[in-house]
Amino acid sequence: MATYMDVHHGFEGITADQLRQAHQADLAHEKEEGVHFERAWADPESGTVYCLSSAPSKEAVQRVHEKAGHRADEVHEVPIAV
Amino acid sequence: MATYMDVHHGFEGITADQLRQAHQADLAHEKEEGVHFERAWADPESGTVYCLSSAPSKEAVQRVHEKAGHRADEVHEVPIAV
Repeated sequence: MATYMDVHHGFEGITADQLRQAHQADLAHEKEEGVHFERAWADPESGTVYCLSSAPSKEAVQRVHEKAGHRADEVHEVPIAV
Repeated sequence: MATYMDVHHGFEGITADQLRQAHQADLAHEKEEGVHFERAWADPESGTVYCLSSAPSKEAVQRVHEKAGHRADEVHEVPIAV
């Protein structure tokens, strides 16, 4: 398992409810891919969403987001953290 | 106080030691600006570093990074989180 940060654009005006619903949709699909979405942060002004996950691969992260209906624009493995 | 995610590019090949040193430099300057850098994640392959902080303003986050010698390419307030 590795740690990933993924980024979504185009979420201008996202609300707390919408972020929670999107995160719930990820949680509903993550087990089948062995992924766990830990946290997500949203900037409604620029429409950017960051998701932190642990997963077996970048592709597994993207598959969960696709099943949940919101493909990520970037998925980065972040093997180094403080 | 609000929550911020900032992004640095150009850190291809960054090591765990280098990330730790950069984070320590932020910690050494953060008090004078009322900022706290909580976590940071690095992708050495794409050279991207993400920093999560709590701070009084976007400008305060940037001032700490500047004093530490590594200006951020983007600073986003992230008022929504799960």
